[in-house]
Amino acid sequence: MTQTSAQDEIRVAVSTVIFALRRTPEDVREWEIVMPVVKRTRDPYEGDWALPGGWLRPDEGLADAAARTLRETTGLAPSYLEQLYAFGAVDRAPGRTVSIVYWALVRADEASAAVAPENVEWFPVKRLRGLAFDHDEIVAYASWRLQNKVGYSRIAQGFLPELFTLAELREVYEAVLGKSLDPANFRRQVEASQAILATKEFRTGAHRPARLYETNQALELADRGPLRNQ
Amino acid sequence: MTQTSAQDEIRVAVSTVIFALRRTPEDVREWEIVMPVVKRTRDPYEGDWALPGGWLRPDEGLADAAARTLRETTGLAPSYLEQLYAFGAVDRAPGRTVSIVYWALVRADEASAAVAPENVEWFPVKRLRGLAFDHDEIVAYASWRLQNKVGYSRIAQGFLPELFTLAELREVYEAVLGKSLDPANFRRQVEASQAILATKEFRTGAHRPARLYETNQALELADRGPLRNQ
Repeated sequence: MTQTSAQDEIRVAVSTVIFALRRTPEDVREWEIVMPVVKRTRDPYEGDWALPGGWLRPDEGLADAAARTLRETTGLAPSYLEQLYAFGAVDRAPGRTVSIVYWALVRADEASAAVAPENVEWFPVKRLRGLAFDHDEIVAYASWRLQNKVGYSRIAQGFLPELFTLAELREVYEAVLGKSLDPANFRRQVEASQAILATKEFRTGAHRPARLYETNQALELADRGPLRNQ
Repeated sequence: MTQTSAQDEIRVAVSTVIFALRRTPEDVREWEIVMPVVKRTRDPYEGDWALPGGWLRPDEGLADAAARTLRETTGLAPSYLEQLYAFGAVDRAPGRTVSIVYWALVRADEASAAVAPENVEWFPVKRLRGLAFDHDEIVAYASWRLQNKVGYSRIAQGFLPELFTLAELREVYEAVLGKSLDPANFRRQVEASQAILATKEFRTGAHRPARLYETNQALELADRGPLRNQ
């Protein structure tokens, strides 16, 4: 491998896709997936919305750079960012830029606790179109991964508080998948997956008590394989 | 996002992990997973083995760069490379280098047809240790992904010819997982997955005829999601 001066033309950026869940303003019985985007204040794409991100610094790891730029642009600090994909098409930006994209799910309380600058807004993912660069494509890929690749455990851990009912978990799934799920089938699949564990606690209220569940942390940790944190 | 001159210190490389399957020299009834590595001819790590790879050029996409450097270093040209992960720890190379790693499975006939330079050798993955840079870690992660993330369809398509018996597919799985599998259970799981399709052809020989299967291409194509090729 010989270093060529042409390498100077290639720059490395990081971007982050953040998913959160909220009740829709139109109907509080419905949930929707929302995502923070940042209005660009300079060219290229000045005035357009883009994913939170920035340039990689020589002295920081990829995940550290994603966490820093996310915090700087949106005030968000999720406990864990997972690498999604490296986007590097030749024409994706005016200067040749490889973007390492990370993603995370955040709970509603984390999302609203973040003190965000004025140029940040949360939009429903299904209405996000016309983002800067190839960010529409990145959001489409992240949404597909959210639908297809995450297990019950990860979704519960990402979107819900520590303890939750099966009905709440099902509502999260219905929002992510965009369709209704049969409660009995859902219970069977969740219990078979061993991704969540029944606790001895119940939620009581107007209806009959509903058992509270928690995520199976052991299963979640195994999911990253032999990668050290970077 | 402001461009800083510090970006000039960061370089982008690509590397490729290639898995192939061969009968072990010690016992032809056994299979083993092998991988090509390249002996480095210059510092750093001169004389050590490393994954095939090289620097990204400003005018080529990531997957194109992986394919080019793989071809240049090993003579291999798999039909499809999948992105594995971007490795970017600060201390992984003497100069700050982000490596976008791709991977592919190749069939034994593709592996032996490649005209490789003298400094390329295929080693059993389980005996590969002490590679240059963080390549031990990359191989460990790729092996974990091979074991955990690929479905019956992809493994069949990657390692086997167009038509194969269930016994052959099971032998491939036994080699990848490093353990014996119960033939009846295996048949049930494969058939339930719909990842392979029974053909009307049979392999005949000394034993009773065995039905030949092919991979379900429709399922395989759906697996990449909305990513365009890059």
